[in-house]
Amino acid sequence: MNPAHALDNIRIVLVETSHSGNVGSAARAMKTMGLARLYLVSPRCQIDDQARALASGAVDVLEAARHCETLEEALYGVVHSAACTSRRRDLPHPAYTPRQAAPELMSMARDAPVALVFGSETFGLSNEQLMQCRWLLNIPANPEYMSLNLAAAVQVCAYELRSLVDGNVLPLPSFEAARHEEIEAFYRALETTLVDLDFLDPLAPKRLMPRLRRFFARAGLEREELAIWRGVLAAIEKAKNRPD
Amino acid sequence: MNPAHALDNIRIVLVETSHSGNVGSAARAMKTMGLARLYLVSPRCQIDDQARALASGAVDVLEAARHCETLEEALYGVVHSAACTSRRRDLPHPAYTPRQAAPELMSMARDAPVALVFGSETFGLSNEQLMQCRWLLNIPANPEYMSLNLAAAVQVCAYELRSLVDGNVLPLPSFEAARHEEIEAFYRALETTLVDLDFLDPLAPKRLMPRLRRFFARAGLEREELAIWRGVLAAIEKAKNRPD
Repeated sequence: MNPAHALDNIRIVLVETSHSGNVGSAARAMKTMGLARLYLVSPRCQIDDQARALASGAVDVLEAARHCETLEEALYGVVHSAACTSRRRDLPHPAYTPRQAAPELMSMARDAPVALVFGSETFGLSNEQLMQCRWLLNIPANPEYMSLNLAAAVQVCAYELRSLVDGNVLPLPSFEAARHEEIEAFYRALETTLVDLDFLDPLAPKRLMPRLRRFFARAGLEREELAIWRGVLAAIEKAKNRPD
Repeated sequence: MNPAHALDNIRIVLVETSHSGNVGSAARAMKTMGLARLYLVSPRCQIDDQARALASGAVDVLEAARHCETLEEALYGVVHSAACTSRRRDLPHPAYTPRQAAPELMSMARDAPVALVFGSETFGLSNEQLMQCRWLLNIPANPEYMSLNLAAAVQVCAYELRSLVDGNVLPLPSFEAARHEEIEAFYRALETTLVDLDFLDPLAPKRLMPRLRRFFARAGLEREELAIWRGVLAAIEKAKNRPD
């Protein structure tokens, strides 16, 4: 497969963007790097003249944007996702620079959709939203002023992906990755089982599920592995209801 | 010398810029990457409210910009210069990607000023202006739409310089990794539990344990995570022996 085609599988997901100009600028940044799949989650702005003016020659990308109610909807079907954030978290998901992350993101994107997620200009992404993504992306920046404009962050990340297309050979993933919605369904089933086991107290859950999410995010789940884990959960439920 | 100080010697030179917003956005892009020396050659716009709004937290960079009549004036004192251009020229100047050029530019900037030069939004740089610079910079781009916004081009080039300062190394949270023998003991306990659950048939184990080992190996186990997993196993064994 032509590595340029991997770019066709890259979704740029903008969450709750406030300024239409930034949506337009992000579309332009995408197209200059060969990306076309823009997803807008609950945008706080319209696709207006300002957006079209700043999209410049990338109005086609802007007009083809998919509008979603939730981040989950935008991540439907993806096999990998990375959330761009400048903030440090107390419970860090695996965090990489765009350069470190790009080879694996592009490798996964040869076969299936991959999402890069960007939060709102003022509030970024919530912890809940961050946790839906497998990796965090931290753009190296001036520690005294890390605040890249939204479209500038899209430009840098897209540039890193693009840099792998020209002249580099990407390794093919040797397995089938589980999809976002399958993994989320597994997390829900896992939580239910842990509650059934009295291991997780729903009234005092502490940080158990976030910690387990982080662990699974670090590994990345293949489809066959997910089937194994679901089998384990089913066996636990069965054993629990069958005294021996 | 601290490599971050080399950034103090990088001049960003904007030639005949038309839109004040782009000057402001370029200032912001610079500051996020730790650059502060902005030179404006015959700007076609004023430093107005639009420029200040888009500079956001980088108004200081904007206000400190040096205004020059000519490119020659902006290049006074520099020991190296590179002109960003997407166009192929008949002039066979050395052309590099920002990534290829960054090490030498930063190396030179440790001792003396180095300039990155960006042309106007519509006309770019004239051949005469290009010839005043030592190198050309070509940002890898979509051949069907190479038109990066001016500030986006500044962002990408500044990001490449910055990446040499931080060495691409993000300080990772210092978790305590589980030890080999602890992990092996966990695998044995996991195997026992899976047999107890009738999920693993010891007479026909197939590839289940090797697959699970591979999964855990990919994630890498921290000590606290290992404690969680051991807790889960204990909860399963307890639930199994307690009909409810």
